[in-house]
Amino acid sequence: MDDRTVIDRALIYDSTLREGAQCPGISLSVSDKLRIAAELDRLGVAFIEGGMPETNPKEDEFYRRIAEYPFQNASFVPFGATARVGVKPENDPRLSALADTPFEHVCIYGKCDIFLVENVLRTDRVTNLSLISDSVAFLKRAGKKVIFDCEGFFSGCGRDREYAFECLRAAVNGGACAVVLCDTTGISDPETCAGLTGSVRSELDDIAPEVLLGIHAHNDCGMADANTVTAVRYGAKLAGTTLFGIGERCGGADFFVTVPNLQLRFGMECIGAEHMKELTSASYRLAELLNIKAPAYTPFVGRNAFSHKAGTHIDAVLKAPGSFEPLDPALVGGTRRFLASEITGRSGMRDIVEKITGPGTSPELCEEILEALKQREFEGYQYESAGASLELLIRKLSGQYRPAFTLNSYKVITLDEKAGNPYSASAIVDLTVDGRSEITAGNGIGPVDALDCAFRRAMGHFYPCTLNISLVDYKVRVIDSGEGTASRVRVFIEFSSGARRFGTVGLSGDIIQASWAALVDAYEYWIMDNAERG
Amino acid sequence: MDDRTVIDRALIYDSTLREGAQCPGISLSVSDKLRIAAELDRLGVAFIEGGMPETNPKEDEFYRRIAEYPFQNASFVPFGATARVGVKPENDPRLSALADTPFEHVCIYGKCDIFLVENVLRTDRVTNLSLISDSVAFLKRAGKKVIFDCEGFFSGCGRDREYAFECLRAAVNGGACAVVLCDTTGISDPETCAGLTGSVRSELDDIAPEVLLGIHAHNDCGMADANTVTAVRYGAKLAGTTLFGIGERCGGADFFVTVPNLQLRFGMECIGAEHMKELTSASYRLAELLNIKAPAYTPFVGRNAFSHKAGTHIDAVLKAPGSFEPLDPALVGGTRRFLASEITGRSGMRDIVEKITGPGTSPELCEEILEALKQREFEGYQYESAGASLELLIRKLSGQYRPAFTLNSYKVITLDEKAGNPYSASAIVDLTVDGRSEITAGNGIGPVDALDCAFRRAMGHFYPCTLNISLVDYKVRVIDSGEGTASRVRVFIEFSSGARRFGTVGLSGDIIQASWAALVDAYEYWIMDNAERG
Repeated sequence: MDDRTVIDRALIYDSTLREGAQCPGISLSVSDKLRIAAELDRLGVAFIEGGMPETNPKEDEFYRRIAEYPFQNASFVPFGATARVGVKPENDPRLSALADTPFEHVCIYGKCDIFLVENVLRTDRVTNLSLISDSVAFLKRAGKKVIFDCEGFFSGCGRDREYAFECLRAAVNGGACAVVLCDTTGISDPETCAGLTGSVRSELDDIAPEVLLGIHAHNDCGMADANTVTAVRYGAKLAGTTLFGIGERCGGADFFVTVPNLQLRFGMECIGAEHMKELTSASYRLAELLNIKAPAYTPFVGRNAFSHKAGTHIDAVLKAPGSFEPLDPALVGGTRRFLASEITGRSGMRDIVEKITGPGTSPELCEEILEALKQREFEGYQYESAGASLELLIRKLSGQYRPAFTLNSYKVITLDEKAGNPYSASAIVDLTVDGRSEITAGNGIGPVDALDCAFRRAMGHFYPCTLNISLVDYKVRVIDSGEGTASRVRVFIEFSSGARRFGTVGLSGDIIQASWAALVDAYEYWIMDNAERG
Repeated sequence: MDDRTVIDRALIYDSTLREGAQCPGISLSVSDKLRIAAELDRLGVAFIEGGMPETNPKEDEFYRRIAEYPFQNASFVPFGATARVGVKPENDPRLSALADTPFEHVCIYGKCDIFLVENVLRTDRVTNLSLISDSVAFLKRAGKKVIFDCEGFFSGCGRDREYAFECLRAAVNGGACAVVLCDTTGISDPETCAGLTGSVRSELDDIAPEVLLGIHAHNDCGMADANTVTAVRYGAKLAGTTLFGIGERCGGADFFVTVPNLQLRFGMECIGAEHMKELTSASYRLAELLNIKAPAYTPFVGRNAFSHKAGTHIDAVLKAPGSFEPLDPALVGGTRRFLASEITGRSGMRDIVEKITGPGTSPELCEEILEALKQREFEGYQYESAGASLELLIRKLSGQYRPAFTLNSYKVITLDEKAGNPYSASAIVDLTVDGRSEITAGNGIGPVDALDCAFRRAMGHFYPCTLNISLVDYKVRVIDSGEGTASRVRVFIEFSSGARRFGTVGLSGDIIQASWAALVDAYEYWIMDNAERG
């Protein structure tokens, strides 16, 4: 690792619309694809790769519409392959389709691993070399700048390194403007990757210094992000990514990991500096467009990236923010969070408590709250996503809680589904507020929905503010799996008032009882919060 | 990177029960922890780290019970820290708690980054060095083998390399049997990691060759897996992992990635070779114990690791299995899957169908089943863990299904919890078999338990074989989060007959209805299966 090339700017080559679409579970509509391309362009990505043109009606419509998009930063790159064995490039409809697209660049892959050439392409080494150079040359004659994907380059170097290099040279000889080293099966490691990238770059410097080098890594061995950053540091100017690393099998390098690594840690600009602070919010938007839940533990932008749970860590971060974070969360638009749990320490707890009860809380009370929290987590509660329940618990222990109502009883009746009846459950809630009783009923799709409906009617009578919130998320987790249907369940509920969201938790052997506890916390929290804000 | 030490065997040091418990969203019960430890021990992990003793009631109970566990392979390692500033080790209750544990090894962390020493510990460099060596020496005098975690070693080397090394030497001088290089903020990269690990190892070879070296990497920059494998290749014999890489913030190195990388790719044995083929199934079991969904894209063991979606890849893998896979899936007990391609969908489907209906299924029927399956997965069903439901679906579409009963009605009544009554729900099931009706009732902890109880009584009357199975797992997953309590839920149920286990799935907007559908599938499957086996 001694031939590192100094690069001050890397170019992001994002393949979400092609490689990402090959990810199990991902299915993108035409408008999803257009919005993803627009967002990547806005952030300053240099190349956006699309799927193969003319392969299905969805792709056709996408190509018609993307051709009209006024890109500000990015070049859109249609993707394809070398000509079929035995077919001249000019007679191969896949290559003609690429040549006919209205874009400056195209990308084709060709096989650089002798094993793939002989066993998948089922041709000989010489024919394959001609396929590569002829296909590239055809597209160049058609006026395209051709990016060549060296499929199987890393596995190929393991089997016959000289042949892998010959394939790459064939693309250069055909007139490729860039060659991309593909770790197709994800078997490379950073050391190998540094060595090979450096060797290729110095060979290119001899024969065709103007040709750009790129990296396309896969994550089959968990090293795509490290390999990508390493390759860029050793001379690959094009950093191949997909959003959240989605792609075939285990996917590849993650855009949200590669960009901060290159730009903030290694000083190689790759998106507009002014957009770096939008990275976290962009990740949420893009996850929506991909219809996936943004992974909480994604480096830099995930919800956990700057979340601290251990007491010693919280204490340290309060004293010195840099102590347990790789960089300032503000640089990527992230937020530091402290999570309350049984392993929260005293100073973290004081911080959390005083935000609720005001300054000057006694150490004894903090200690008592911490102990109560530990005990409840021992029982199976979890408060990290249930801030409203945590606040109620703290207020109860601090003597700052007054119950909003007294439950007399509830009953829920669930029947088997009957055709024509949209509701399968009914509930009756009987409660008392300030000496006045109210009994209400509600129907619902399932028992919890019915219960919420009846409860809301009763509470809305006394506390009109409760009519302004609605339930937006409901999660059930069975704990102690193995106890069968009688095991305990933890229910998380999230409510929204439009402007604000808050979460509560309930725990019981009975799912209805657990849901009820979470509903009660939500209504009580909102009533209390409204009273305080006047 | 030229001072690589040749190691033929690495030792897995797993911190799931300590670091993993610090992961946002993870909350482990005492029995979960014991079962995780047992599974890791069985697989051949060398060290299993636990949380700090005497910090909360859950940890106390865990320590009481783990002390009795007959470990076959692993050493259990209690975790703690150096003495507090200004307190002698013998007077520090945290260190006494460690000394009092009945285990051979203990692990303590101490700060090796001058920034942490000055800003978090708020002491001077000399005092910190004494803290380290005195704390280690105290535990050694108490008869322990002491593993020292060099907290902030990598960030520390960036700030004051010589001081970081001094801290490490202080631990060695105190008598540590192993020192672990901690990339506490996850900022290292493989090249730096190789360099520092190599330097430390050669220094240790000079001053204390018997001291083992370890690595504990964090994933804040997406490089924990690469850094861990690299460090081991450069002389760290202890490879720090957690299951699925769970831990503070973005977590750290993943057990399921580290083990196959070291053992299968770099030839360094770290778990029993005979257990490697169980890795995939172990990952499912352990995910259940952690109460997380095993990430589909985890290298080697994830559901997508050997799943192929692009037509060209499927075609290639059919011609030459090695072409698009990092290694043979059988080595880790994995299975190759072909997804969503028209043509392989057909041949894959035929394979599944003929296992159930016998050979000679018409291509039209296979096509029909495939379409039905796609439609139902589109609606939200999932059959991968519900083989019994899939078999019923195939039999229904093949005309090989006869309903075991006709439901006339069910009713479930749930009441609010009353003191002294163990059951919060009652159910009534009314059904007919061969013209004879049966109406039964049951009580339960929650509505599903009550429904199962009543249903079992009715079915047992007609089909005594149903009394031999019992419900062993019940999972609820809300899909379309965002619709609130009225969103759809998918219920998975697993039944066991002692010798066999089988799973079913139900889907509905109503959790009771979804559970009912899964219960019905389970009973019908078992009745059919018994009838076939005579």
